[in-house]
Amino acid sequence: MPELRFNVFTREWVVISTERAKRPDEFVRKSGARPALPAFSPQCPFCPGNEHLTPPETYVLKDGPAGWRVRVTPNKFAALASEGVREFSIHGVQRKVTGVGIHEVIVETPDHSKTLATLTDAEVESVVGAYLNRLEAASKDPRIEHVTLFKNHGEAAGTSLEHPHSQLIGTPVITNQFRDRMITSLRHFDEYGECLFCRVLNVELAERVRTVLENDHFVAFVQYANLTPFSLLIMPRRHMPCFTEMNDAEAQSFAKTLRRTLAKLYHGLKNPDYNFIVRTAPAEYARVRYFHWYISVIPRLTRMAGFEMGSGMFINTSLPENDAAFLRGVEAE
Amino acid sequence: MPELRFNVFTREWVVISTERAKRPDEFVRKSGARPALPAFSPQCPFCPGNEHLTPPETYVLKDGPAGWRVRVTPNKFAALASEGVREFSIHGVQRKVTGVGIHEVIVETPDHSKTLATLTDAEVESVVGAYLNRLEAASKDPRIEHVTLFKNHGEAAGTSLEHPHSQLIGTPVITNQFRDRMITSLRHFDEYGECLFCRVLNVELAERVRTVLENDHFVAFVQYANLTPFSLLIMPRRHMPCFTEMNDAEAQSFAKTLRRTLAKLYHGLKNPDYNFIVRTAPAEYARVRYFHWYISVIPRLTRMAGFEMGSGMFINTSLPENDAAFLRGVEAE
Repeated sequence: MPELRFNVFTREWVVISTERAKRPDEFVRKSGARPALPAFSPQCPFCPGNEHLTPPETYVLKDGPAGWRVRVTPNKFAALASEGVREFSIHGVQRKVTGVGIHEVIVETPDHSKTLATLTDAEVESVVGAYLNRLEAASKDPRIEHVTLFKNHGEAAGTSLEHPHSQLIGTPVITNQFRDRMITSLRHFDEYGECLFCRVLNVELAERVRTVLENDHFVAFVQYANLTPFSLLIMPRRHMPCFTEMNDAEAQSFAKTLRRTLAKLYHGLKNPDYNFIVRTAPAEYARVRYFHWYISVIPRLTRMAGFEMGSGMFINTSLPENDAAFLRGVEAE
Repeated sequence: MPELRFNVFTREWVVISTERAKRPDEFVRKSGARPALPAFSPQCPFCPGNEHLTPPETYVLKDGPAGWRVRVTPNKFAALASEGVREFSIHGVQRKVTGVGIHEVIVETPDHSKTLATLTDAEVESVVGAYLNRLEAASKDPRIEHVTLFKNHGEAAGTSLEHPHSQLIGTPVITNQFRDRMITSLRHFDEYGECLFCRVLNVELAERVRTVLENDHFVAFVQYANLTPFSLLIMPRRHMPCFTEMNDAEAQSFAKTLRRTLAKLYHGLKNPDYNFIVRTAPAEYARVRYFHWYISVIPRLTRMAGFEMGSGMFINTSLPENDAAFLRGVEAE
């Protein structure tokens, strides 16, 4: 019989197809490896030599033959306006706010053919350094309530540009989804006197059936009530509400954990499309004891259909414990 | 400058791209009309003569040359088990319930080549009759807390079978998404002494810039803070928490409204993939004054990427007022 498992973070039940579950190898990219990309693509706005095609840099790590290792620029097709005043306008059930905010692109490497999974640890550390710099900068803008840092890899994940990049969007409002997570974890803290995330991490480490990677600072694991096949969380062992609170050793360790986790997906599932999202509290919550930052990595192996959209529930056709065992077995050094 | 609009039902802000908004005709299916389907497909499990390929019917409307006009059967690949006891098992942060429930398929017509948009009003009335029958039956099962009735049309909407059909899933838990809508509307009722849905409907009817269709019983409109291009709500004018409370005149009118709304999408956007979802309260809420059933129709013209998944916010590149004006102009009698 299938079972429904309760996701304590989203507070949503997930249908886990225990009997009809697919084998992990059924999720491997059917079309095999993608065609290899060239290291340089003349039309690509993120390739070296084409820097004039993007707005002026807000951050750059100068180094190497291209002149830079990581570049950050405002998104040329930004969803929000960088200039302007945040103004709310409330008329009964019609409420709006001016669309001011930050929308930046983090170009992760000059090499068009790479992806985070195939960069070196040192290169991913440089990317993480850019993330930290831009998150800190965004949190100083008084118009910004919340920052979402994310990556779209591949067409099914919603990207049109193949050159490796991530994005950061700072919004003039806190999102309801994030507010919900904050409220859920605050209530858990009130009721149980513990951080919900620390608790889940401890349970995962005690059982070790859904853990995929561990080191001194981070754990990557598949959730007990995982929404979609092979989705993972990467969570710091130390209680920290904000991504930007990592110390140097943690940032280095995080880069390594992220790269290895993505490399396991890359090799195990043959370079699947995926999103990842940094779920961090706004800077003003840096001292709270109830929230704990983490990263969601979501391979886009399935589609949302009417049931998921109409109920918020997911039907997961892959057993979380099998996902983790499969990924543990994938070499990713 | 873009603007963020607040969706009072989901309580989520939506980024409306006012300047970079696309024109409505940019959302018309690029590949043009789909290839026409045959009226009968020998391998299709939902075509007449292949009734033995599906489990025994739970409902049938006998009529016409095929012997039936509408058939309902359990889903052969059901997400939930029809037999069994609902049992919760709670161990700290690990909570589960047995996956018992109802998963049925409503075959909307014997004709493989049709879709709800191209059926007659009378044929859609028969489909609505089946919906009412099955929702009522599901609500009598004491193991079922909530029923989601939905349709996936086209590959991007998550369907693999092209024969026109809808689905019904009855779950042993109420979904968190639905509970959230109930709480939101209950709070609005407490604070303002009115049904939030009635209020929104009245505002839309007073402004008439986002309405698409109106008749004595129903209104189809684009939401002020619409999440995705050309999504629509169909809402009854009369306050009713449950879909199954419709009287005969309303059911007839609903069938006509649904068909015409879908026909406007079919002709205006050239048969886009779409989902629709009936958002109805469980039967035990039939008398509450704060909740009001409705249908969401969601053309799948865009993809969810990392920002949407990581924030819950949507970026809508089509102006709701333009969507409505465009659809009002599409002939659908």
